[in-house]
Amino acid sequence: MLKIGIIGYGYWGPNLVRNFSEIPNAKVTMVSDLNPARLSLLKIKHPSVTTTTDHDELINSPDVDAVCIATPVSTHFNIAIKALKAGKHVLVEKPITSTAEDASRLIDEAAKRNLTLMVDHTFIYTGAVKKMRELVVKGVLGDIYYYDSTRVNLGLFQHDVSVIWDLAVHDLSIMEYVINKKPLAVSTTGISHVPGKPENIAFLTIYSESNIISHINVSWVAPVKVRLTLLGGNLKMIVYNDLEPSEKIKVYDNGITLKNSPESVYQTLIGYRTGDMWAPRLEVTEALKDLAIHFVDCVQKSKKPVTDGEMGLRIVKLLEAATTSIAGRGRLVELT
Amino acid sequence: MLKIGIIGYGYWGPNLVRNFSEIPNAKVTMVSDLNPARLSLLKIKHPSVTTTTDHDELINSPDVDAVCIATPVSTHFNIAIKALKAGKHVLVEKPITSTAEDASRLIDEAAKRNLTLMVDHTFIYTGAVKKMRELVVKGVLGDIYYYDSTRVNLGLFQHDVSVIWDLAVHDLSIMEYVINKKPLAVSTTGISHVPGKPENIAFLTIYSESNIISHINVSWVAPVKVRLTLLGGNLKMIVYNDLEPSEKIKVYDNGITLKNSPESVYQTLIGYRTGDMWAPRLEVTEALKDLAIHFVDCVQKSKKPVTDGEMGLRIVKLLEAATTSIAGRGRLVELT
Amino acid sequence: MLKIGIIGYGYWGPNLVRNFSEIPNAKVTMVSDLNPARLSLLKIKHPSVTTTTDHDELINSPDVDAVCIATPVSTHFNIAIKALKAGKHVLVEKPITSTAEDASRLIDEAAKRNLTLMVDHTFIYTGAVKKMRELVVKGVLGDIYYYDSTRVNLGLFQHDVSVIWDLAVHDLSIMEYVINKKPLAVSTTGISHVPGKPENIAFLTIYSESNIISHINVSWVAPVKVRLTLLGGNLKMIVYNDLEPSEKIKVYDNGITLKNSPESVYQTLIGYRTGDMWAPRLEVTEALKDLAIHFVDCVQKSKKPVTDGEMGLRIVKLLEAATTSIAGRGRLVELT
Amino acid sequence: MLKIGIIGYGYWGPNLVRNFSEIPNAKVTMVSDLNPARLSLLKIKHPSVTTTTDHDELINSPDVDAVCIATPVSTHFNIAIKALKAGKHVLVEKPITSTAEDASRLIDEAAKRNLTLMVDHTFIYTGAVKKMRELVVKGVLGDIYYYDSTRVNLGLFQHDVSVIWDLAVHDLSIMEYVINKKPLAVSTTGISHVPGKPENIAFLTIYSESNIISHINVSWVAPVKVRLTLLGGNLKMIVYNDLEPSEKIKVYDNGITLKNSPESVYQTLIGYRTGDMWAPRLEVTEALKDLAIHFVDCVQKSKKPVTDGEMGLRIVKLLEAATTSIAGRGRLVELT
Repeated sequence: MLKIGIIGYGYWGPNLVRNFSEIPNAKVTMVSDLNPARLSLLKIKHPSVTTTTDHDELINSPDVDAVCIATPVSTHFNIAIKALKAGKHVLVEKPITSTAEDASRLIDEAAKRNLTLMVDHTFIYTGAVKKMRELVVKGVLGDIYYYDSTRVNLGLFQHDVSVIWDLAVHDLSIMEYVINKKPLAVSTTGISHVPGKPENIAFLTIYSESNIISHINVSWVAPVKVRLTLLGGNLKMIVYNDLEPSEKIKVYDNGITLKNSPESVYQTLIGYRTGDMWAPRLEVTEALKDLAIHFVDCVQKSKKPVTDGEMGLRIVKLLEAATTSIAGRGRLVELT
Repeated sequence: MLKIGIIGYGYWGPNLVRNFSEIPNAKVTMVSDLNPARLSLLKIKHPSVTTTTDHDELINSPDVDAVCIATPVSTHFNIAIKALKAGKHVLVEKPITSTAEDASRLIDEAAKRNLTLMVDHTFIYTGAVKKMRELVVKGVLGDIYYYDSTRVNLGLFQHDVSVIWDLAVHDLSIMEYVINKKPLAVSTTGISHVPGKPENIAFLTIYSESNIISHINVSWVAPVKVRLTLLGGNLKMIVYNDLEPSEKIKVYDNGITLKNSPESVYQTLIGYRTGDMWAPRLEVTEALKDLAIHFVDCVQKSKKPVTDGEMGLRIVKLLEAATTSIAGRGRLVELT
Repeated sequence: MLKIGIIGYGYWGPNLVRNFSEIPNAKVTMVSDLNPARLSLLKIKHPSVTTTTDHDELINSPDVDAVCIATPVSTHFNIAIKALKAGKHVLVEKPITSTAEDASRLIDEAAKRNLTLMVDHTFIYTGAVKKMRELVVKGVLGDIYYYDSTRVNLGLFQHDVSVIWDLAVHDLSIMEYVINKKPLAVSTTGISHVPGKPENIAFLTIYSESNIISHINVSWVAPVKVRLTLLGGNLKMIVYNDLEPSEKIKVYDNGITLKNSPESVYQTLIGYRTGDMWAPRLEVTEALKDLAIHFVDCVQKSKKPVTDGEMGLRIVKLLEAATTSIAGRGRLVELT
Repeated sequence: MLKIGIIGYGYWGPNLVRNFSEIPNAKVTMVSDLNPARLSLLKIKHPSVTTTTDHDELINSPDVDAVCIATPVSTHFNIAIKALKAGKHVLVEKPITSTAEDASRLIDEAAKRNLTLMVDHTFIYTGAVKKMRELVVKGVLGDIYYYDSTRVNLGLFQHDVSVIWDLAVHDLSIMEYVINKKPLAVSTTGISHVPGKPENIAFLTIYSESNIISHINVSWVAPVKVRLTLLGGNLKMIVYNDLEPSEKIKVYDNGITLKNSPESVYQTLIGYRTGDMWAPRLEVTEALKDLAIHFVDCVQKSKKPVTDGEMGLRIVKLLEAATTSIAGRGRLVELT
């Protein structure tokens, strides 16, 4: 039975508490939050959990084997490094840290102590993303051409990070996991409509090896919610609409074919092919539940998590490059 | 009765012939195409129209007052300048020319001879785009924040121009007409998946005065057709879905509001507001018919067309800047 | 503080417990279920609630002022009559009882004892249905022509009642509340695809006063979930799609107009008119919470509930008529 | 080369002229209409076609081998019987005649003279309906449970026939062709909202052999256009949405399974199964073109048309039964 302590009981913390409470081999023993009112709320639903406003107390408690960190990004490193130094396994909200340097230090610390370090890139554990990865790995799509995602909605401005760190981070993790190709350079544009605040709209282009282009459109000021990803290969293409209640993934038997038409300069040279569409049935387990089970499993069997610190670091490097690029209004930033 | 000659009877030419045949005060007298088979096809439907494979014959015919040019972009300038020099009014397909310099020369020639020079930016004459313009001009949307458009589908690769000159040109004209603010700089990324061919995917960002950002996502390799534009202001926001049979324009009474929440660092600082949605009834006239009527009207009354040569030139300057930027992988190109 | 006892902790019971726990002036004190395992589950989430497998104990407990009944329909009457006789207010799941006669007896018993008797027709408390009622009452739709609803999905066969008593009951309550006209006669058709089981598909037509027709299409064997209601008047018409996350209600400024076309026998005689569409913002409170608040309010202030026993009785009369009609394969059953 | 004469150049006639003009082995030689203005319009587009306001002239012309009848239903019989007696093959708009008796007489006359008699049930020639038939015939759906169709929109009241004869006729032909089971009885309800006019809303239930139920919901007073058909079998189910630009047919790998749950009276007895969804690519030929080719082929090779007079008769029998039933407000009418 893995004893779990959760730091931060704001928006995401309750989801962590609920899921870790419902899975086998784990138990939420302690929760900390700076706000005592939040902790009272927790107590009503989970009277047996110990609470504290001091996360150091949680980190150092013998009743905690693993720490989940659901606090603002800027605090991730300090809390995580303490937890690792106290010998605790760590699951940290996305993105892992505010800087790549900090992420590296966490990775080193965890490695040195043989502790599990995992990042909560939740989308990786959804049935839809796992199915896309499976189709790519099996070669069903052929050579990948592009990943193009729109993730926009109204509201929930964050005052400390831009929309890149809040929303694009999801697509960067999905892209990394599904495409699985080394990103080479980033060009990002965007804008802030509130003076002195970080960007609320951003457009990222990532050039990856094998002539793959990825594009991510994120916004906090869209009138409607859109979660639409196109993933194109030369054999098949996918439309992933996360707002569909079912049929989130549609696989189109479409593709590009060469077509010679020497007789006319007005005609196209390259043709296309359209065929059936297929919507595979997807796993319906809540992604966070799968993630929680995976974390416990990794800790107990010393396995490498799918969304490990290294993956978290790669995402942060992309976020840093995008942030540099947006300041240069689209200036290309090479990844090293 | 304005006598119309149409050069090019490929994909778009038949639409021009049909529309100019059906409106008052105009008459299609002559059509030219390099391909005699195309002209035979025309003859079946329009036996009274004179045909020729030599567009010079059409340009110099006394039976032609105005010339419509529906040929590949690279030929626009040479044909149009001849027509103007022959004293003919000119309606030319979008984009007006391959270079801004050529566009300027056409504008000068038309001005010198008091001839009408108009560009067929068809979307400007749709009920949906006219309604958006009207709502922006009336101030219904408040301060404009952004124009964000996705225009992707499968196929019809062009071998001489990139997807920017084929598809983004539509959004540049809509953006110019609806937003009506001076563009300042362009950053564009994209890729070609066919060796030696122009880009088949491109992402344009245009920074305009008044802190407005525009973004255009165009592709010839998408599994599904998308024509979706979001237009955001601080008072209201529009979703324009050109594939909706009706309800193409939806106006959301949404907006951004400032919200202080000093009590918690976890809470958002800026709020949002959601209200009713409203889909105004739109004119259902075919846009090209409106455009044809407008062209005849401008010629006969010496009026300035909405989509005149100057507008065509501004669009070509944006296309040139985007083409320069894409070669520099997102390098910012300032507009002068 | 109204002390609430809930009988039945299966599918719907947990929702009642949650909602009555979260509102002011009420408190869930006791829950009964035949299945001890269900009660153990409750205890984990609500340790302070008393549990029992004997609902008589709950009914007779001095710690219970009002009883909510969430058991199979066939048991409603026996439980409810006991509760009323024990002096408890009653909230009962829809439909109120299996027979109109039983419903009348509950109404009489409640009246005699000045107790509140309310039926959980939850849809009546949704923002969408309240908005439709408001628009009809204000005369925005003009004369009502029809109510036409499709409520189909896959699965959840009930072994004791037909799809009419399970799904059509929702539409009958919405129709009754929104249209507010006396139903005169019912014709119902349907079928069972499982030998010996009640109908899993049914189509109800209800003729009401003022020349209004209602139609309800319900099924447990549809491949997709549909919740679509059209409500037509001579001035405006509504599309109510309960599966839309927002914009559940769309009001169309459409209508019928007389148009004489004496010149041709081929032409239509009656025209139509299309205008704007408008999607009013709806209340987003959970309907069951509103219902719970209303129940407590009615008990404490001796008010007549919107969904009182009389309404429950009228719905049961319609269900009985539909059941008689379906057995006669569409035979018209007059309502008295 | 089959010489085609077309009687009636109103709404549908132009489509017949266009399609018969474009196919091989046929030629439109003559068109009649009572309205000379309609004929002038035809002359502009088709100058070589002979026109007349007297359909007898067309029927008796040696320049006509086959007659297409696109006039109001009430005139079908008189025109068709004359054409057959004049030795002409006949293609008649749906429904074949106003009465079953008249249809029988046409069938007999055509048989006696070895002439082709075909009905223009256009939907039977669409890629979507052909695919549904194919899937049913191959047994992909298993045992058919139901056919459930909604076909509603605003407007185009007909003054001489009810919405049943105008819209339900499409579904009756699709149902007949796809399901291919003998209908046994009909119950129909409906209403007229214009005094003295036939029904503008109707709901048909058809009981067929093999325990299949069909339901058809038709209306001229719906705010939006709906063309949605559900076709359910025990192995798979189809959603046919004719308004989808592509993906008109979606095949769901869903079905019903028996599930015993003896432990609880609250649980369901029958389960369901959900799997992948698949949208087969459909033929994109215009249905009317396929129909025209089929008609010419049947005439030239003395083949029996898919939509022959017998099928037309079966549909009219259903229409008559539905009309009788609606007058009896749902009274069951057995088919003999």
